[in-house]
Amino acid sequence: MKIEEKLTKMGIELPNLEDLYRANKSGAKYVSHHAIGSVLYLSGCTPTKDGKPFLPGLLGKDLSVEEGYAAARHTMICYLGMIKYVLGDLDRVKTFLHMVGYVNSSEGFSEQPRVVNGAVDLLVEVYGNRGMPTRAAIGCRGLASNHSVELILTLEFDGKKTSEPLARDKFNN
Amino acid sequence: MKIEEKLTKMGIELPNLEDLYRANKSGAKYVSHHAIGSVLYLSGCTPTKDGKPFLPGLLGKDLSVEEGYAAARHTMICYLGMIKYVLGDLDRVKTFLHMVGYVNSSEGFSEQPRVVNGAVDLLVEVYGNRGMPTRAAIGCRGLASNHSVELILTLEFDGKKTSEPLARDKFNN
Amino acid sequence: MKIEEKLTKMGIELPNLEDLYRANKSGAKYVSHHAIGSVLYLSGCTPTKDGKPFLPGLLGKDLSVEEGYAAARHTMICYLGMIKYVLGDLDRVKTFLHMVGYVNSSEGFSEQPRVVNGAVDLLVEVYGNRGMPTRAAIGCRGLASNHSVELILTLEFDGKKTSEPLARDKFNN
Repeated sequence: MKIEEKLTKMGIELPNLEDLYRANKSGAKYVSHHAIGSVLYLSGCTPTKDGKPFLPGLLGKDLSVEEGYAAARHTMICYLGMIKYVLGDLDRVKTFLHMVGYVNSSEGFSEQPRVVNGAVDLLVEVYGNRGMPTRAAIGCRGLASNHSVELILTLEFDGKKTSEPLARDKFNN
Repeated sequence: MKIEEKLTKMGIELPNLEDLYRANKSGAKYVSHHAIGSVLYLSGCTPTKDGKPFLPGLLGKDLSVEEGYAAARHTMICYLGMIKYVLGDLDRVKTFLHMVGYVNSSEGFSEQPRVVNGAVDLLVEVYGNRGMPTRAAIGCRGLASNHSVELILTLEFDGKKTSEPLARDKFNN
Repeated sequence: MKIEEKLTKMGIELPNLEDLYRANKSGAKYVSHHAIGSVLYLSGCTPTKDGKPFLPGLLGKDLSVEEGYAAARHTMICYLGMIKYVLGDLDRVKTFLHMVGYVNSSEGFSEQPRVVNGAVDLLVEVYGNRGMPTRAAIGCRGLASNHSVELILTLEFDGKKTSEPLARDKFNN
């Protein structure tokens, strides 16, 4: 079964990258991706839902581990929307080479890995074992728009043509 | 027009990497770069001016967003000085594959992207559209010498010969 | 002399990756490594000793720079244990392309580089000059199990066969 069919069966609808960019009020300047050989560098991704940050705030103060997990899972849904823009077909991903998960943390919070698991669990549900990345989970102090989670992914793909890198700041309003 | 001519016209003088290293009192041990194929890994870079940290301190407490933007812009000027050491000619850069911007943040600060834009704006002024990297902007807690910004860049270059990696700690005093 | 002989002469015993995984109570889901060409992406590594976090806590509050240095050195010992699992032979490492050191920091701590030097010094003792990575040292807010240091390494190796990526969460108990 195709990756996107699986997502549909799970009731997951991928957001459109342009809609994500329009909802993102950070004012940030960057492009979606750059490919070199079969390595795909991607910009970081935060969780946006219905045009605004999903479950923003600090872990350990504003949010529980379960809420952070849900935010990380939703971040990966947004990331798959970005990857769909870049590759057209999510089956073109070969390996999730590396993921760093930054968790917006209050003083003393040390459950960053359980938060970031929300993103990995979704990948494994959809891609099976090849969805498991190498990774690190890091507590940070502050993210754009008070987001609770930001992920940075680096992928191996089939090395063929990608879409044109899309500049986020064209969608500032 | 060559990249360095543009910088000169803009009144920007690139610092010399050895001078940057001499000014850097962090005691850190690392080399400037390692190349593999046409990917260039670079050590992180902080803003140094006249032999000391430029606009040090925490965003949202010691520094405004505009000051952080200026610090990020200056960090990129220092980085271009480093890249000039590595490649000899700044036109040899093909793509700014990835940049992570760490912003030394006070509690509750969430404008990291507007700070990091200072670095990207300079790249786009000089390189045009190909200056736009994929990126993430992350709030951190503490940087060497109380610097306000640290950038980590990964580049695509022409894949030809680079200078010998330069070890920073040879310049400790 | 082989790298492992040097370590033995220095009285350093490399931990076994499965033992490290068993001791790690973070609940994190990831695999040890993914290789593409001769680039090896590795999961982040924290310092574990005798089945628990070694020198946990915040730099500048719970730990001195010297203790942080010792934690970073031990993190690299654990990382070499991981790399031994992946490559079988530590001499197969060609270049330490990049290392980011995250230092769990208290308010106002800005000696992150001197902490991370603990990891680099060990690499240089063992590998000589080719042990020196490109790097950055970043203050963070919170790490799994209150660890004081986490490192992320990316390597160049001989590009030949690696062990099967090992999933950490199989060792949850």
